[in-house]
Amino acid sequence: MATTRSGGAFDRVPFDALLKRRLFFTPSFEIYRTASGFAGDTKGLFDYGPPGCALQANLVDTWRKHFVLEENMLELDCTVLTPEDVFKTSGHVDKFSDWMCKDSKNGDYLRADHLIENVLEARLKGDKAARGIAAAEEKDTSNDPAAAKKKKRAVKDIKSVKLDDAVAKEFEEILARIDNYDGLELGALIKKFDIRNPDGNNEVLPPVPFNLMFKTSIGPSSGSIGYLRPETAQGQFVNFKKLLDFNQNTMPFASASIGKSYRNEISPRTGILRVREFLMAEVEHFVDPEGGKKHERFEDIDKIELVLLDRHTQLAGSTEIKVMTVGEAVRSHVIDNETLGYFLARIHLFFQKIGVDPKKVRFRQHMANEMAHYAADCWDGELLTSYGWIECVGCADRSAYDLSVHSKRTGEALVVREPREQPLKIEEWQVDIDKKKLGPKFRKNAKAVEEAIEALSQEQRERFAQTLDNDGAISIDVSGLPEGQAELDKALIQIVRRTRVENIREYTPNVIEPSFGIGRIFYCLLEHVYWHRPGDVARGVLSIPPLVAPSKVLIVPLSRAPGFAPHVKKLSARLRTLGISHTVDDSSASIGKRYSRNDELGTPFGITVDFDSLKDDTITLRERDTTKQIRASVNDVLAAVVSLVNGTELWTDVLERLPEFLGQSEDE
Amino acid sequence: MATTRSGGAFDRVPFDALLKRRLFFTPSFEIYRTASGFAGDTKGLFDYGPPGCALQANLVDTWRKHFVLEENMLELDCTVLTPEDVFKTSGHVDKFSDWMCKDSKNGDYLRADHLIENVLEARLKGDKAARGIAAAEEKDTSNDPAAAKKKKRAVKDIKSVKLDDAVAKEFEEILARIDNYDGLELGALIKKFDIRNPDGNNEVLPPVPFNLMFKTSIGPSSGSIGYLRPETAQGQFVNFKKLLDFNQNTMPFASASIGKSYRNEISPRTGILRVREFLMAEVEHFVDPEGGKKHERFEDIDKIELVLLDRHTQLAGSTEIKVMTVGEAVRSHVIDNETLGYFLARIHLFFQKIGVDPKKVRFRQHMANEMAHYAADCWDGELLTSYGWIECVGCADRSAYDLSVHSKRTGEALVVREPREQPLKIEEWQVDIDKKKLGPKFRKNAKAVEEAIEALSQEQRERFAQTLDNDGAISIDVSGLPEGQAELDKALIQIVRRTRVENIREYTPNVIEPSFGIGRIFYCLLEHVYWHRPGDVARGVLSIPPLVAPSKVLIVPLSRAPGFAPHVKKLSARLRTLGISHTVDDSSASIGKRYSRNDELGTPFGITVDFDSLKDDTITLRERDTTKQIRASVNDVLAAVVSLVNGTELWTDVLERLPEFLGQSEDE
Repeated sequence: MATTRSGGAFDRVPFDALLKRRLFFTPSFEIYRTASGFAGDTKGLFDYGPPGCALQANLVDTWRKHFVLEENMLELDCTVLTPEDVFKTSGHVDKFSDWMCKDSKNGDYLRADHLIENVLEARLKGDKAARGIAAAEEKDTSNDPAAAKKKKRAVKDIKSVKLDDAVAKEFEEILARIDNYDGLELGALIKKFDIRNPDGNNEVLPPVPFNLMFKTSIGPSSGSIGYLRPETAQGQFVNFKKLLDFNQNTMPFASASIGKSYRNEISPRTGILRVREFLMAEVEHFVDPEGGKKHERFEDIDKIELVLLDRHTQLAGSTEIKVMTVGEAVRSHVIDNETLGYFLARIHLFFQKIGVDPKKVRFRQHMANEMAHYAADCWDGELLTSYGWIECVGCADRSAYDLSVHSKRTGEALVVREPREQPLKIEEWQVDIDKKKLGPKFRKNAKAVEEAIEALSQEQRERFAQTLDNDGAISIDVSGLPEGQAELDKALIQIVRRTRVENIREYTPNVIEPSFGIGRIFYCLLEHVYWHRPGDVARGVLSIPPLVAPSKVLIVPLSRAPGFAPHVKKLSARLRTLGISHTVDDSSASIGKRYSRNDELGTPFGITVDFDSLKDDTITLRERDTTKQIRASVNDVLAAVVSLVNGTELWTDVLERLPEFLGQSEDE
Repeated sequence: MATTRSGGAFDRVPFDALLKRRLFFTPSFEIYRTASGFAGDTKGLFDYGPPGCALQANLVDTWRKHFVLEENMLELDCTVLTPEDVFKTSGHVDKFSDWMCKDSKNGDYLRADHLIENVLEARLKGDKAARGIAAAEEKDTSNDPAAAKKKKRAVKDIKSVKLDDAVAKEFEEILARIDNYDGLELGALIKKFDIRNPDGNNEVLPPVPFNLMFKTSIGPSSGSIGYLRPETAQGQFVNFKKLLDFNQNTMPFASASIGKSYRNEISPRTGILRVREFLMAEVEHFVDPEGGKKHERFEDIDKIELVLLDRHTQLAGSTEIKVMTVGEAVRSHVIDNETLGYFLARIHLFFQKIGVDPKKVRFRQHMANEMAHYAADCWDGELLTSYGWIECVGCADRSAYDLSVHSKRTGEALVVREPREQPLKIEEWQVDIDKKKLGPKFRKNAKAVEEAIEALSQEQRERFAQTLDNDGAISIDVSGLPEGQAELDKALIQIVRRTRVENIREYTPNVIEPSFGIGRIFYCLLEHVYWHRPGDVARGVLSIPPLVAPSKVLIVPLSRAPGFAPHVKKLSARLRTLGISHTVDDSSASIGKRYSRNDELGTPFGITVDFDSLKDDTITLRERDTTKQIRASVNDVLAAVVSLVNGTELWTDVLERLPEFLGQSEDE
């Protein structure tokens, strides 16, 4: 169950109201949604207001420092607009789709897996309620006949929703592997359980694939189709050669991109968790596939404990977690290799840094059918919210898939070439062709014959070498010839075993891709840091860590008397010089009201300028979570703010060394 | 003429080669452009590589501090995807287009104004060359008969391109106001001067409008059309009410957005200066239109000198500039109002901050037909480059246009309501209707009649009051009625003059919009800071100021001996703690080569760790532009780096207080 930061039950109503009131985000084009005659689809589109914008920018900044700068990644900013051919090659035109059902009567479109999930979950919920009441009835020994009668009727009503034990178990198992079904299987489930559109109870048509990419046309000619990218990755892959060159031909290395991506979700719900336009941050770590994908900094994170839910557990219909160190997980093959493990640990550390609740993090491995078409393995970093577990980071092993397909399509070698320390000696069958004879014999087909010969595998060559030895001639398949075969004799061709020495090693790197949905992390973080003052749900607090808080300091002049303005202006200028983002609230609201507003905005510190400040140049500093205050000189307070924001000191440290201020109460 | 930073002639070839070599940016999907069978349109799409990405991020960061934080603007991040209705309302569906000509034979699409510009400029260029040779011939007294004959032939060849004085003058005047022609006028010019597609010399068809917005479909139903925004502005306008509320109902205020926008350019050329996907930073400053759009901080910038090219000058076919202070310009009505002037000055200061050459900046006013459909006035901040003057910032007065149209379309009042200090007394004609009689008389048409009465203007009311007085009855037009008119007598209606007291003032704010093309500024800045070491074009330098330089420090270990690595690692960690972005180059290239690479990347400072460093913990610090070095302790050097990067000290200051190092030459 979702809880607030203080451990209470999570109530989404006041939480949503707070985010709306403080304009963290808002549905896009809201004034149009209610306008008469408006037919546009604005679902899944959200705008970030000032505090949301600042929080998002700080998350991105922290991400850039944690990944790009600390690991010397090569950052790229590639275009969203992408010509069709690129996504044909990458497989997205054919395969990047969800299964969609159409309501047979009202024409609604529904995402098939979500439809099944919602309906089965609702039935299970009804079932649980039914079991609860039934259980209560058994125990009940009430001798109030009216109450007993009422209960009897209620129990009868819910009898219809009580499921057989076996059916309930089947539902649970289906839900545990809902991501693993393909279209046909989803269709079968819909039929088997008579699943209908909950909105109107109409039957739905069988699932069809719906491609999630937004299509457009680039340039004035309508023939040039383009798509909005559904991930930033392809821009990084097509630039691989340039990146390797920029990195002075050294492997391994990683590129990274932060930018918008687009997915035309069939029926987006659940607020900003499922949107059509979203900010992503992606790393493509290029690694030599030989030697088990080791990572040179693995020992730095070996001992970090992760919460894991692996593929096998889920396929068995369970969601039981394993807690183990990254080192153990890699050595016991729960996690496939060091590089994948390294990034899972780095993701874990990033979550910690930005203030995610460590008790609400798990890494879940994808099941086979759930994986994107390009992935060989994938773990999701999931965060627990009132909507359940939310996939916020995908960490996929894309193997050599993307580089290989782009290379094949364009003819551009997207490979690494490096001198071998020890030259490699390869024993192999080589073919010698006498081209002076080949040309006259096959004339215009000579090239096709030559290509067919060159294409022979080692096994074929070995067999043909024997035939040539035995019979003096061989015949090989050449699709271009009228007879379909070419006769070649010893004078024309020889097949001999020789040793070749290879000084250069050429390989296509594999790619490990940690991919972050910034908007989802943004939302989950807000749920994790939300709570309210004891006993007062109207006084919400967002305990966002100083590192990522939208604004670090609120300056509050106690009075609007003319003497205050110059003090506030000077303080503001000094904070600006120190690089500390801050706001001023010189409204006429009470000090308590202004601090409450501040708590809702997640601002960690408040500075009050009061009448004493005008006399002795001292100010007070308030900490959001404890509401405790200290009073000291402007210099001391600003120095404390800098160390608190940089993380070199905690509030408890500051409280110990500077005098606490008990002057005015918040409720005044 | 374009010049390098050191004043030499600007040669685009080595400059372009440098940017490409260092991966500042690169054409998107380049490996596909040359792939066989590839038909996609990738023109006008560019990716930013690592140094370009970092420079862009630093420009955005500086912009955010200069505008958003210093002026307490409300930042928004709105979606790019926008439903059709929003852009129908804003006028973009109907009017956001360029005039396009189709080549009559090969089907090429050409932008009409650019076509005319290119052809007329080429003819003028030929004309100038012709005049030059003709002039040379007049003066020439050569007695070499062969040379004389050769020259005669050349002169004859170019006689055909020599223009009449009157025609040349007409061309100049057309070019000066090329942005002011509409489609018909452009068509007339094409006809008059027989302008053809320079590529193939085919005739072109008359100009037609081509809408520049990318179209797509949002959601699974194909009926829901959407566009990619061509500017960030509309997202800010539709959120106006929420922003005003967030700002606690206080005016004036500004919102700001930084994000991608999209324009489907007809035929993008000139590299990253005209692209289909670009990063914008826009401010919408909402201001009370009453009282001349004053700005409370105007006196802070009153004395700043700007270079201005106003509308009247251009319409007279001239490009002569005026240099005056913002204060003078506003007081003499060259610039319309204080708020517009304030932002032009702030733009000017931003240019200075990021290192733009002050001699290559001008502000040009739009001519009437050149302005976007929403603009009442507009000034472009232009930067001079080898491509001529480039519009990098538009500063438009959008008046109340956008808020009014969205308000009208949605029925949502996008206005400011504020209590009047003095209640306003308004003398007006008011209509009293006896509804008890109106209903029975007009039955189902009663509502239409009432609405027609309420809609009467003050002038009409005054006239009807007299008629009613004189005739005892009036008849007014009501379109819904069978007779088209309603007869109303004194018993039903009375029109009287009364005084109404208004305590609340309601108005639609006007908008001043400074709008920045980050990519264009990025490119122009690179041209402005480019030069090369005297006499060596191969040793290019980008003198990007430390504030926005992609990386601030390069750490160069002199040797790859094992003792160096720990020193480098420690230095790197200390710089990271100080928040100074840096890179390490421990390649085997010579120190001179590594510094050269560094100069090309625009890194302002280099730290060398040499053999002495291992002994006495001193390091050297090199400054990019002067190549001078100092040597000091690690602590002193790092402190100097911090103050240089923060701008609290200049290199000359550091050179004065720390010992210069003359140890090793760069050319070693």
